[in-house]
Amino acid sequence: MPQTPDWVKQLKPSGTQGHELLAKERAGSNIPVQKLEELLHTKEVIQRRNKITELLKSEPIFDKSQNYFMGRVDRFERALAREKKLRLLKKKHNWSYDEFRAATELVGEPGPYGLHDSMFKVTLAGQGTEEQQQKWLTKAENYEIIGCYAQTELGHGSNVRGLETTATWNEDDKTFTIHSPHLTASKWWIGSLGRTANHAVVMAQLIIKGKSYGPTPFVVQVRDMKTHEPLPNIHVGDIGPKFGYNTMDNGFLLFNNVKVPHISMLAKYQYVDPNTNKFGRRGSPALVYGTLTWVRSTIVMQAGSVLARGVTIATRYAAVRRQFQDRDAKAGEAETPVLNYTMVQIRLLPLIAATFALHFTGKSMMEMYQANQEKLKQPRNKNESQRGAGPEELDSASDSMADLHASSCALKSLSSTIAGEGLEVCRRACGGHGYSSFSGIGTWYADYLPTLTWEGDNYMLTQQVARYLLKSARSVLNGERPTNDTTKILSEFQSRREIGCAFDVIGSDKDLVDAFAWRVAFLTFEAHKHRDIEKKPWNDLLVDFYRLSKAHAQWMIVKNNLSALQAIANSNSVNNDTVDVLMKLFRLYALHTLEQEASEFYTSGACAKHQIMLARTNAVMKLLKEIRPHAVRLVDAWGFDDWVLDSSLGRADGKVYEDMFHRASELNPLNDITVDPYPQNDVLFKRIEKAKL
Amino acid sequence: MPQTPDWVKQLKPSGTQGHELLAKERAGSNIPVQKLEELLHTKEVIQRRNKITELLKSEPIFDKSQNYFMGRVDRFERALAREKKLRLLKKKHNWSYDEFRAATELVGEPGPYGLHDSMFKVTLAGQGTEEQQQKWLTKAENYEIIGCYAQTELGHGSNVRGLETTATWNEDDKTFTIHSPHLTASKWWIGSLGRTANHAVVMAQLIIKGKSYGPTPFVVQVRDMKTHEPLPNIHVGDIGPKFGYNTMDNGFLLFNNVKVPHISMLAKYQYVDPNTNKFGRRGSPALVYGTLTWVRSTIVMQAGSVLARGVTIATRYAAVRRQFQDRDAKAGEAETPVLNYTMVQIRLLPLIAATFALHFTGKSMMEMYQANQEKLKQPRNKNESQRGAGPEELDSASDSMADLHASSCALKSLSSTIAGEGLEVCRRACGGHGYSSFSGIGTWYADYLPTLTWEGDNYMLTQQVARYLLKSARSVLNGERPTNDTTKILSEFQSRREIGCAFDVIGSDKDLVDAFAWRVAFLTFEAHKHRDIEKKPWNDLLVDFYRLSKAHAQWMIVKNNLSALQAIANSNSVNNDTVDVLMKLFRLYALHTLEQEASEFYTSGACAKHQIMLARTNAVMKLLKEIRPHAVRLVDAWGFDDWVLDSSLGRADGKVYEDMFHRASELNPLNDITVDPYPQNDVLFKRIEKAKL
Repeated sequence: MPQTPDWVKQLKPSGTQGHELLAKERAGSNIPVQKLEELLHTKEVIQRRNKITELLKSEPIFDKSQNYFMGRVDRFERALAREKKLRLLKKKHNWSYDEFRAATELVGEPGPYGLHDSMFKVTLAGQGTEEQQQKWLTKAENYEIIGCYAQTELGHGSNVRGLETTATWNEDDKTFTIHSPHLTASKWWIGSLGRTANHAVVMAQLIIKGKSYGPTPFVVQVRDMKTHEPLPNIHVGDIGPKFGYNTMDNGFLLFNNVKVPHISMLAKYQYVDPNTNKFGRRGSPALVYGTLTWVRSTIVMQAGSVLARGVTIATRYAAVRRQFQDRDAKAGEAETPVLNYTMVQIRLLPLIAATFALHFTGKSMMEMYQANQEKLKQPRNKNESQRGAGPEELDSASDSMADLHASSCALKSLSSTIAGEGLEVCRRACGGHGYSSFSGIGTWYADYLPTLTWEGDNYMLTQQVARYLLKSARSVLNGERPTNDTTKILSEFQSRREIGCAFDVIGSDKDLVDAFAWRVAFLTFEAHKHRDIEKKPWNDLLVDFYRLSKAHAQWMIVKNNLSALQAIANSNSVNNDTVDVLMKLFRLYALHTLEQEASEFYTSGACAKHQIMLARTNAVMKLLKEIRPHAVRLVDAWGFDDWVLDSSLGRADGKVYEDMFHRASELNPLNDITVDPYPQNDVLFKRIEKAKL
Repeated sequence: MPQTPDWVKQLKPSGTQGHELLAKERAGSNIPVQKLEELLHTKEVIQRRNKITELLKSEPIFDKSQNYFMGRVDRFERALAREKKLRLLKKKHNWSYDEFRAATELVGEPGPYGLHDSMFKVTLAGQGTEEQQQKWLTKAENYEIIGCYAQTELGHGSNVRGLETTATWNEDDKTFTIHSPHLTASKWWIGSLGRTANHAVVMAQLIIKGKSYGPTPFVVQVRDMKTHEPLPNIHVGDIGPKFGYNTMDNGFLLFNNVKVPHISMLAKYQYVDPNTNKFGRRGSPALVYGTLTWVRSTIVMQAGSVLARGVTIATRYAAVRRQFQDRDAKAGEAETPVLNYTMVQIRLLPLIAATFALHFTGKSMMEMYQANQEKLKQPRNKNESQRGAGPEELDSASDSMADLHASSCALKSLSSTIAGEGLEVCRRACGGHGYSSFSGIGTWYADYLPTLTWEGDNYMLTQQVARYLLKSARSVLNGERPTNDTTKILSEFQSRREIGCAFDVIGSDKDLVDAFAWRVAFLTFEAHKHRDIEKKPWNDLLVDFYRLSKAHAQWMIVKNNLSALQAIANSNSVNNDTVDVLMKLFRLYALHTLEQEASEFYTSGACAKHQIMLARTNAVMKLLKEIRPHAVRLVDAWGFDDWVLDSSLGRADGKVYEDMFHRASELNPLNDITVDPYPQNDVLFKRIEKAKL
């Protein structure tokens, strides 16, 4: 690497230094950062995180300095080595599950063991018999076999029923033949499969005597345990580079009539009787519905912190970066930190508000989920304790579960969209330097984007929400008693429909939330009219359904956010000033959303024209001013270590330019090559053409 | 590379093949693709493009098969070699400027000679004296010196006056000393500088006898002509990887009191007299204003074709990709091409409409610009021909130029945002496979994103538009006669303000455009009220200004689009059916925009509530249905060669899955490595740790 000359090393940024600017920002707000951080994460989690962060930083394999420079092959190899080191550290330090998960999150890159530790083991545990668990799960836990979960195919994503891979039962030798009849049957996108796994849970259409029994999981060995080469008649490999997630080896997998033994079919709930050659079911795979709800709730909460990383970077940099004087400023004044510009504030402050709103909403979803699981487990009363929950509680629990399920779909869709698109807003708010890899936002954004597609595509999911809301509307129109928040707001709307409403959206927090509810109810009954009365085709209503689901999610967010803040205010866990700022963030999020969706609020009658104009020109702008001084402390409260952010722009000490320069001048391998700049006489060109031949 | 086994090579996708599906799509529409393509590009341009495409395809250096796999260093070296080859081909085939530009566009990646061939040579030609042009321009044209344009600094982007690099005049030896006093003075983001250039036009603060004369261009040699190593006291290198644009070597540059001769300062319009040591000006750098307007107009037109690439890929793939049955379909029906889903249509078809709208708008901007330039050049009348244009024509020309300038700012901001964000919409509309590099959208999107920031940041620019509109509002309120379209719509609004309006936005195309104009006028006078009457601080109005600029650009687009289509209809250059579909695209673009900005249309009084609801639920949905059958032919008309798209999903023959598979299985270098999958026993890990030490 070329040396940085001494005369360059002595240079400093001009004017007020970054650390001084950030110190000034922090001095201008009285938010107790540590208290707020504890409110978000709890003391225990913070301590755990800090301890592990220090440990990881001390291990050379986790050094990040070449991350932004490495090509795909090096990135992948390094990621695999890090994954291995994490498992060794786990053993060495006897980490709990939570500690291990914290470490994985801190490393912050998708890792090649990802699907082994999640879906592979979860499926074995959830769908394997005891015998099967003994055969595979123990080994998987000791990393003696490495697995993945092979469901998606080249030609089939969301529609599991359309999978083409077959598993045909052979009566004669009591085996299954796994086969890929077409190119589109190739398993595709399978995480950890490309280079790493030697086993796979393969979802295949089970066929017995020519009859199909639908997608069924099989455990199949795909690579040799010693040489790690593919087994005969198996074609497996990595699917190639992606927009992000390149530290993961998403793979493809094809079978040419591969025979596997009877034990390969995961048989906890379904089986083939080798004697009768008949298919059978036993037990019922309960709570799968619930598990997805749980996964989606974690995505909601995670969306808050995912976005917070980008917002932390952009906010700190906006406090350090100065550009132009304010147009109304006096001559000779210094350039203004761009965070003072309202056009920057309107982009960043509602996103700060969103980080908190998503965090509180996700948390409350997870609490509701757990409360419900408890309800399902509880005995009805002493006399009937041996029978488990009685029918009434079960009904109410499953009713809330359905409501929770729909909410989790709507919220997963909206929150991951907010986080993904919000990160790009953050990147652009950093101006030109946002485009540099050293901003730390680009890679993070690119790695996060799949979340908008997996665990239910953000567009597809909204149909499930609409289906639930239509069902709820029918029940309300049938005069059934409201049983949850959704049917409650629909009934209330229905009873006041002719009277109309008059919400004081700017003066009252409760009214603000109620206006969101009114809009949801209005859109639900509109959708009901189109579908049930006008009998419009389902396909013609997909766009309406998408809007409806979004409205429902927005209502959930403002509702949960407000009740979380009310609980915080009552608990005295942070001081009044902090509660006050958090309430302002709530209002900013709600009013900014209202203003963005103004036409729906207006057409539903939830708001009048002058309220929308007031929200836009007065309320939102006033909130920006009031929140502005607290911006840096608010993002500080998320508690990201510089090592985690890996961003020149987002450094906690504001040494933005020093760090940009250091990376460019001292770490950048492109500066190791010297080119011949003249076209006339090209060695390079000949070398490349030669290499081709 | 591991071999693809023969049994895999024999596999085909299941069901109806991709080429059959696309053939069916094409058979379902009567749009004459070739005629429409000629309308967009002209026959001459198409022929030129096709000829050069074939030539480039035949040269091995332009082979793209490893583009998505290569790391930064390889990508850059390859890009430089391609740039060189292009110059050699230019010479060999005696290409015209247009042919050379077409070739560069077809290669489609940012190249390391980019700034040499544009800003370096343009600045020499525009601001150099004849002597200076002889010294540098001739050599630059022969690639004997390679240059770049070094303006932006680490701490200074848009605000040129804030640049820190100094050029101090030395009276004693008649030289300038170029110096970087701080780290933030480092030149940064300078295209072609990182590894390639040996000369730079450096913008530095000219200082004579301690007095500053503002940013001034100097030609400075930075690297040795033979060794290509940096010259003494110059620190220069590449700034590191970016979100995209990684085939370009954006560079940094610092000077430690480097002396350059008197001739280095580009002196066509300003100079330092070496005898008197005084600064002087001569002539005036006219039309710089005009040049930026021209550059921005090209960005508008280019935005259409940039977006068209993504839309072509997503539309073709949506016709090939099938997922689920329609919910109302009968059992046993095949899965539906996703292009049939309205939720896919609402994302893609308005973007198809946008490609045409942006193309026609950009084209008309460029025509207006040229007409204006002509007007400026024309003599007023025969008697005064020697004096050039008379004051009245000049006034009118400069008045339209100011209008054109503001329009180009507003349109540059909006159109590049539409294209950038639209590409991401296209990528997501491709579902999971959109995330693969082989979709061909990700890299294209990432490479395009800087356009949203350069040539005027898309947020900053809107202030210029607002300033112009405020000025226009004042002139109208002062009773001045309308002189251009902007003042015309402001006067009309003013005269009808109390009466109100009643536009038939759904039934009449003219009314639809007028509704857009009404909203612009309403927002302009609102802004005028806030600024001039209520005396609100400029900073408090930036968000309003942004909205205003966007509204203005949207009006320009629908207006230009409609008049372009009327001209096309009159010219009989395409048949009536085609005009009919183009008119539908116009309406879709306009009504979809109206519906997205509904609250402004409503609050301004340009639309009533029921019109917005009708636009949303009836008009837009109906247009989607009507345009749907023509989607594939409409994107075909953009005429992208498969080699240009470099996309598995966007192939003209629909062989999506075959191509995805080919690239993953046969071109992917990650499949060359075999890993040790077990953490217990890690060779790789030790190797990496060793390499670190």
